Amino acid sequence: MTKPRIIIIGFGNVGRGFAKVLNMKYNLIVEKFGVSPRVVAIVDSRGAAINPRGLDLEKALYIKKSEKTVAFYPGYGKLSVTGLEVLDKVDAEILVEATPTNIVDGEPGLSFMLEAMRTGRHVITANKGPLAVAFYKLSEESKKHDVQLKFDATVGGGTPVISLAKHCLSGNQIVSIRGVLNATTNFILTKMSENHCSIEEAVKEAKEKGICEMDPTYDLNGTDTACKMVILANALLERRVTYKDLPEVDGIEKITVEDLKEARKKGCTIKLVGLADEKRLLVEPMLVPFNDKICVDNTLNAVEFKTDLAKEIVIMGHGAGPIETASKMLNDMIEIFKSQTNR
Amino acid sequence: MTKPRIIIIGFGNVGRGFAKVLNMKYNLIVEKFGVSPRVVAIVDSRGAAINPRGLDLEKALYIKKSEKTVAFYPGYGKLSVTGLEVLDKVDAEILVEATPTNIVDGEPGLSFMLEAMRTGRHVITANKGPLAVAFYKLSEESKKHDVQLKFDATVGGGTPVISLAKHCLSGNQIVSIRGVLNATTNFILTKMSENHCSIEEAVKEAKEKGICEMDPTYDLNGTDTACKMVILANALLERRVTYKDLPEVDGIEKITVEDLKEARKKGCTIKLVGLADEKRLLVEPMLVPFNDKICVDNTLNAVEFKTDLAKEIVIMGHGAGPIETASKMLNDMIEIFKSQTNR
Repeated sequence: MTKPRIIIIGFGNVGRGFAKVLNMKYNLIVEKFGVSPRVVAIVDSRGAAINPRGLDLEKALYIKKSEKTVAFYPGYGKLSVTGLEVLDKVDAEILVEATPTNIVDGEPGLSFMLEAMRTGRHVITANKGPLAVAFYKLSEESKKHDVQLKFDATVGGGTPVISLAKHCLSGNQIVSIRGVLNATTNFILTKMSENHCSIEEAVKEAKEKGICEMDPTYDLNGTDTACKMVILANALLERRVTYKDLPEVDGIEKITVEDLKEARKKGCTIKLVGLADEKRLLVEPMLVPFNDKICVDNTLNAVEFKTDLAKEIVIMGHGAGPIETASKMLNDMIEIFKSQTNR
Repeated sequence: MTKPRIIIIGFGNVGRGFAKVLNMKYNLIVEKFGVSPRVVAIVDSRGAAINPRGLDLEKALYIKKSEKTVAFYPGYGKLSVTGLEVLDKVDAEILVEATPTNIVDGEPGLSFMLEAMRTGRHVITANKGPLAVAFYKLSEESKKHDVQLKFDATVGGGTPVISLAKHCLSGNQIVSIRGVLNATTNFILTKMSENHCSIEEAVKEAKEKGICEMDPTYDLNGTDTACKMVILANALLERRVTYKDLPEVDGIEKITVEDLKEARKKGCTIKLVGLADEKRLLVEPMLVPFNDKICVDNTLNAVEFKTDLAKEIVIMGHGAGPIETASKMLNDMIEIFKSQTNR
């Protein structure tokens, strides 16, 4: 695999972020890892751009920005082409799946990922939905077809939570996972605590700063953190659970500035924490001491692993941002290259 | 490489720790990674135990404890056999090098590592000396003979600093590295700050708790941290430096309880910090704000990477302990297995 071909499905913030970082780091990848990857297809909600010899990523990004779809990519764009059609017709070794998260049935990402693996392609995704509803099925399919399923970008934004556990803690048994995994609510709680403002005011500020989606329901009610915890529990604790199995999910909607003041009197603050071990799997606002290692502010994420040999390991980093998140898809891609070339 | 053979040279705390964790995790390695590693030779300062069919690690640990050398291992032990003789005579795919650190010329570890690579063996080490004096040479030899040189255990105790950067941040450029990397001095500074005691009293407590070596000179004067920074600068910043090139190393010997009190007034404490970027490479006691992510206490280590894509990433964990350190040699070994089997 010296000239791996890539299909990108989903060209929103994360898909475009991946195209940007791949373009930015192309020379480094060629030099350091001896492979020359090329993107042979990009699919968005209105159509696709396809060129077996490789698309010009800068041009694709420009067209997407100006025309709202890559389907107008000169010479190679086509309206109304779907992801499944592209997977069927375009030869490639890797699918980069970056469609929006759907936690009801994981679609359309789930079908793209299954189809890609069925046809022998490795999959890299930033999409929590398919993994939160069908982790076991996806994992089994990847084994069955001897392809890699890489999903470090689904958890932690720029913080490499899953790859740390998989590549740096092998041999350790991970006993428990505890973390602050939602950048939006962490920003909101930080602002409420710092500025003594209401949750509504903090949400407004988060929206103004582009930290928060227009509808932040899934962040606020704990759903986003719960999906991430389901992925971590499956991937690292070998628990076979789906998002639907999770009864104990509580969000931050009812947290008031008074709660935060009370917490402060005890040397604590309130964070939306996900917790998983052999038995437990829950998400809820918790009192966290200021000197707790996972007590990070603003849009930072932090995760503590308790392990049998190395004891506690904590990783923290930026929990959001398309470039930060895409950097992990790039790392996933490089890990696939390395595994194929023994570099 | 389904039945990799291992030679362990150096059977002190770390070498024994490796034997313990390998023994403890043997079944997991067989099941999860499809390989059955066996230790075919163990060498200590007085002799060796050699069995091409594999030594019983529990027995080797018991003999070492009771007889002070594996040379009395029943049937397979021999006095006065050296590491180089074993490397010459015993077939194996992997050398686990765990002799004591020597920062003057890196010996005897340096010769063992070079000889192992020259004869086609992968090397896993916890020994800072050879890498601090001859990183470039070792790295070139590993490329020349197409073997892997793994040294995550040289930095951070149980904290996977190097493997995080190598396996989870590929594609990122690491711009700078800043960290608290010496468990002994961090424990001493913590005790001085908490108990308002002198450095002598804190050293005494550290010795009583087994945290500190009998002669802690290299910890106190910054040498240990400097060696680790040299390794990080070579491995992650592509700087070709040796320990001897490092002019700016200052230790904690002159830090007083008054200095720590003054620091506290400014919302800070004093930590022995290593710092490296494209130009700088230094080790010195620094004022560190309490809310700085690398401000960890006792024997914890913490490292902050500044990167171009993922921005800041911080990892923290236990900075000492034979089992913690050996867990990273085990991870290094598993990474070698994975790279050979594409698992």
